[in-house]
Amino acid sequence: MAGNTFGTLFKVMTFGESHGVAIGGVLDGCPAGIQLDLEAIQTELDRRKPGQSAIVTQRKEPDSVEFYSGIFEGKTTGTPIGFAIHNTNQKSHDYSHIKDSYRPSHADYVYDQKYGFRDYRGGGRSSARETASRVVAGAIAKQFLKDIKINAYVSQVGDLSLNTDYKNLDFSLIESNAVRCPDPEMALKMENYIKEIRKEGDTVGGIITCVIQNVPIGLGEPAFDKLHAELGKAMLSINAVKGFEYGSGFEGVKMKGSAHNDQFNQDGTTKTNHSGGVQGGISNGMDIYFNIAFKPVATVIQGYETIDKEGNMVKTQGKGRHDPCVVPRAVPIVEAMAALVLADYTLLNRTIKL
Amino acid sequence: MAGNTFGTLFKVMTFGESHGVAIGGVLDGCPAGIQLDLEAIQTELDRRKPGQSAIVTQRKEPDSVEFYSGIFEGKTTGTPIGFAIHNTNQKSHDYSHIKDSYRPSHADYVYDQKYGFRDYRGGGRSSARETASRVVAGAIAKQFLKDIKINAYVSQVGDLSLNTDYKNLDFSLIESNAVRCPDPEMALKMENYIKEIRKEGDTVGGIITCVIQNVPIGLGEPAFDKLHAELGKAMLSINAVKGFEYGSGFEGVKMKGSAHNDQFNQDGTTKTNHSGGVQGGISNGMDIYFNIAFKPVATVIQGYETIDKEGNMVKTQGKGRHDPCVVPRAVPIVEAMAALVLADYTLLNRTIKL
Amino acid sequence: MAGNTFGTLFKVMTFGESHGVAIGGVLDGCPAGIQLDLEAIQTELDRRKPGQSAIVTQRKEPDSVEFYSGIFEGKTTGTPIGFAIHNTNQKSHDYSHIKDSYRPSHADYVYDQKYGFRDYRGGGRSSARETASRVVAGAIAKQFLKDIKINAYVSQVGDLSLNTDYKNLDFSLIESNAVRCPDPEMALKMENYIKEIRKEGDTVGGIITCVIQNVPIGLGEPAFDKLHAELGKAMLSINAVKGFEYGSGFEGVKMKGSAHNDQFNQDGTTKTNHSGGVQGGISNGMDIYFNIAFKPVATVIQGYETIDKEGNMVKTQGKGRHDPCVVPRAVPIVEAMAALVLADYTLLNRTIKL
Amino acid sequence: MAGNTFGTLFKVMTFGESHGVAIGGVLDGCPAGIQLDLEAIQTELDRRKPGQSAIVTQRKEPDSVEFYSGIFEGKTTGTPIGFAIHNTNQKSHDYSHIKDSYRPSHADYVYDQKYGFRDYRGGGRSSARETASRVVAGAIAKQFLKDIKINAYVSQVGDLSLNTDYKNLDFSLIESNAVRCPDPEMALKMENYIKEIRKEGDTVGGIITCVIQNVPIGLGEPAFDKLHAELGKAMLSINAVKGFEYGSGFEGVKMKGSAHNDQFNQDGTTKTNHSGGVQGGISNGMDIYFNIAFKPVATVIQGYETIDKEGNMVKTQGKGRHDPCVVPRAVPIVEAMAALVLADYTLLNRTIKL
Repeated sequence: MAGNTFGTLFKVMTFGESHGVAIGGVLDGCPAGIQLDLEAIQTELDRRKPGQSAIVTQRKEPDSVEFYSGIFEGKTTGTPIGFAIHNTNQKSHDYSHIKDSYRPSHADYVYDQKYGFRDYRGGGRSSARETASRVVAGAIAKQFLKDIKINAYVSQVGDLSLNTDYKNLDFSLIESNAVRCPDPEMALKMENYIKEIRKEGDTVGGIITCVIQNVPIGLGEPAFDKLHAELGKAMLSINAVKGFEYGSGFEGVKMKGSAHNDQFNQDGTTKTNHSGGVQGGISNGMDIYFNIAFKPVATVIQGYETIDKEGNMVKTQGKGRHDPCVVPRAVPIVEAMAALVLADYTLLNRTIKL
Repeated sequence: MAGNTFGTLFKVMTFGESHGVAIGGVLDGCPAGIQLDLEAIQTELDRRKPGQSAIVTQRKEPDSVEFYSGIFEGKTTGTPIGFAIHNTNQKSHDYSHIKDSYRPSHADYVYDQKYGFRDYRGGGRSSARETASRVVAGAIAKQFLKDIKINAYVSQVGDLSLNTDYKNLDFSLIESNAVRCPDPEMALKMENYIKEIRKEGDTVGGIITCVIQNVPIGLGEPAFDKLHAELGKAMLSINAVKGFEYGSGFEGVKMKGSAHNDQFNQDGTTKTNHSGGVQGGISNGMDIYFNIAFKPVATVIQGYETIDKEGNMVKTQGKGRHDPCVVPRAVPIVEAMAALVLADYTLLNRTIKL
Repeated sequence: MAGNTFGTLFKVMTFGESHGVAIGGVLDGCPAGIQLDLEAIQTELDRRKPGQSAIVTQRKEPDSVEFYSGIFEGKTTGTPIGFAIHNTNQKSHDYSHIKDSYRPSHADYVYDQKYGFRDYRGGGRSSARETASRVVAGAIAKQFLKDIKINAYVSQVGDLSLNTDYKNLDFSLIESNAVRCPDPEMALKMENYIKEIRKEGDTVGGIITCVIQNVPIGLGEPAFDKLHAELGKAMLSINAVKGFEYGSGFEGVKMKGSAHNDQFNQDGTTKTNHSGGVQGGISNGMDIYFNIAFKPVATVIQGYETIDKEGNMVKTQGKGRHDPCVVPRAVPIVEAMAALVLADYTLLNRTIKL
Repeated sequence: MAGNTFGTLFKVMTFGESHGVAIGGVLDGCPAGIQLDLEAIQTELDRRKPGQSAIVTQRKEPDSVEFYSGIFEGKTTGTPIGFAIHNTNQKSHDYSHIKDSYRPSHADYVYDQKYGFRDYRGGGRSSARETASRVVAGAIAKQFLKDIKINAYVSQVGDLSLNTDYKNLDFSLIESNAVRCPDPEMALKMENYIKEIRKEGDTVGGIITCVIQNVPIGLGEPAFDKLHAELGKAMLSINAVKGFEYGSGFEGVKMKGSAHNDQFNQDGTTKTNHSGGVQGGISNGMDIYFNIAFKPVATVIQGYETIDKEGNMVKTQGKGRHDPCVVPRAVPIVEAMAALVLADYTLLNRTIKL
């Protein structure tokens, strides 16, 4: 299994290289009868696409999705939804700096080792361009989920951390700025910082926080497929992600159990939510929230020394137009992956009662 | 899919409740011809079992594994390995405090909501007792992996953090103390702290660090099944885990790309290892290392108020003998899950070249 | 994936060799809340067990199943059901004729080639003893299915064929004779024929017909996982099966479309049922019926020449007590596999509508 | 799981409706480094396409496949191969006879019941047009398999049966006639018979025989995933298939074990091959051969009465250009599915030895 499938029942298989003919996928298992809002799907793609603001890569790619099947008279038919996004920007590049040498902290070297050779153009399959297909499938999942609300936002860029409980934030402000941070003041600081970094020809990392609300009780499968474990895998499968924590996370280890335990209200809700909406791997109806750490983008526009295929040291430098910080464009990807997990577990949960 | 299977090719399905007849599992896909060291498997179980030291629960359960199939004349046959650990301690307990009320931050409430009722004895399927089956399968995986070395240890208990690079630690000291921290001085501090916590009738969390060495280049599947994504899921599926980070992790977000990138040596190794041994989801031959955050154990031996099935507030308190801190016993579980992932990805990697 | 798992949602993994410690399995995904009739499960095992009549092997094995988990206060809990049947008859046999030589039309030779060696005792994993685990899981599936009625019976032994439409048969007579043929007269002929064959030290094949009634409309997944395709795989996975046909089957190829088409009644039922209850891979509410061809048992109690591991010709003969014809004991296995497929597709069908 | 995926390691997911925008699929897990012959793939599609001869449907569709990914410099990269075939013939048809009424022995009725509504144009997803995607994937599988030779041919049309052992046939003659029967005399008879049937506005069934040669020993997984069980499922998943038998098949039930058993030669080959190349679910190196029964095509160009959505009886008749007999065009589909199974089991077999 070459790892290009996600989900058990609400299941997507993606394909495509950065500079091949097209990227896309097949979504199988989507329930029949969903009145699809195709514009909403394109809107999600637009949130991810390059060239959308001054702080992301200035490449121009429209990323228009075409649907091939599984939709009839505007509604999902219950049969697989095939889709593709043609690559319009794939020609006439100069790949000499990639073709025969290995960029540090990229997948170039390991692809050659694993497969014997690689499509080096723009990083091939290892490019984050692949995540556009996830956004399409995730946008459909969102429409299936309907009442479950998924909001992700940038909560840290480099050292600039938004230390605000998500309950004190106005999610409607997320899209009001290029960084996708719902605190306008912090957003401005982050934006300026990213611009500085770009001027240096360097990059920086960041954190995305995701909040899922109106989750029904009971989603999640015990043992290996705990809801937060699958969410964790989903997030860790996004390019550049280095860490995942939910609820009290890494800070929670310092607490005592008596303080960490979420005491019940009479209606089954809890007074605190250190559990992050998941107990024993199953949603308890409280908000699910988690943080995802993204490393600084590996492509820096500075000269560096690296090795070529023969193991010789060569001097080279990053070329083209790249993101100085990945998190603003990763926000819709995080939401898409969360939606895919929730959709899958919603279907799984239908099967366990008489 | 009720979520009790782990792995695609090296695949284990587990069963069992804390106080049922037995727990166990079936391991399918283990290659034929491995000369099994059954004592080494039991040793791993003994590292996990209750009653092994003064700082873990004082319950007595021998946790002896019986093998039913898949082994002939001491060697694996390539057919499924069935095994069981009979529960010897499951009788005559008083469960009145669990049966009709819900313990905070346990799975009691969500199980009732998801399944309609539950086996409340000792937490049923949601008990960490289930992980003993994982340790059996993982111990077999370790023997298959042979040269790949997996070492986990406790690096934090509450606020007590071992701020030492793993390369400066002597892994042979991990088993020299009850905490499983390879720094004897820190181990003593941690041990004393856990004893204090226990006296308070309280609990505390901790962090386990895991290091995997001698990993061949090329393990991992791009896109959704990246090696670190599967490791993350494996770890997050362990009871009480709240977070996972590998390589530079959450700290890495603050770094610039120029500093974070791992520059190559001429032999393909890297000068630094912020990547944590994985690039683009594929092992690059450097050490894999990651941290796992465990919350404080939910069962506290203090009085507390909670709700019963009818939503009435009731006073109750933890009973029986519980772990004040889960990390010392979780070390072999972490290693087992890491071994299962590595074994599965070793087999998957055999299939992608001509 | 070593092939010991069946089903996607209602999923069983089995283990065990003919003469190992035990055989058994884990059933995962069985819905919670089924009041299990454990005696009914044992009754199914008794229908399959050796020694039950004069025309089957005279080995004595009680085949008592023990349940380890997943059942609480008599009901399924939604967690995995672990079970085992200990082998009581596994000792002190003489295997010299199997150990170093290969029985014709058995799996001895291919196991050695595939795995490098094998557990030769009683055929090891390739023994039909493995199917006892399927019968346990299938018996639980039957209880989940409740209103769906599955009846299998012997319709042919050697040349003796029961050329009667199943609608003219009284299924309550199936268990009235040792052959499990619902026509008492034909049953007697078959029984006498099997006894003759046994006296010759020979064996003979047969056909089992299976009829599934009260199937709801809509079970089955288009494309690869058509309902009849999965039923076919399920049946072909039973030891000694050589063919599967449903509805009009092989005879249907001679018909013209105008005659073969099943014309509708106004209520959606059809006037004829050449479709065998499945159209486009999906159940249409009519009876599902199919035939399964079993080859003559490979173990004959006659002298024969074969090869040993070194490729030398050796003289040997079948030993022990074997079935002269497999179909009487295979009837409950066929029903079990049909039940597993129907249970799985019932759960899958829950997931495809809004 | 909506059933549109086939294979575990060499895995294809298909999409597409008969008259939607496009059909296609994603092939994941294909090993890297195969020098693809794209013309050979198109040739396989041409063998399946409509309009290729006088005895198949006269629709004109070029069925040109476009590849989107997974191929670089002519070789497979080990990443998913996305492909599509655009539907060129999907416009301006008159579907009034299908839209609101249900064609007998088609999937119209059950689709409406299962999904709530359906894409009725040309049968939508239930059309055999879907199998073109399988032919693409299967053609790649053939190139991976290289030395394993797969030949299918028509061995029966209606009552006209080619009673010749495949060893006496010249496979190079299969493509020499429109029926794809390697016996020119019988081919002519079949062709004439099909023309007659077409004139009647009727259809007829047939049998395809498939022979697989040069199979290495050891392919196949015991228990549920026996090689012939997966082959059976693969074939039964093809539109219009009603039965599958391999080796001695249904005729074998009449034989005695002493005659049916395949005696060994000293080199491990067998003197006879009633086993059909598979023993205990594992290939033994002998030729694999099997028969597949196809029902008469359900679309007859004759008037008939059927029901509409409201359950009223309505008069209608088949329209458009349809195949009077499906087997000539199904030959490449059978070969494709066989190739997919063999490719998958080849990869699986790599994982079970040390």
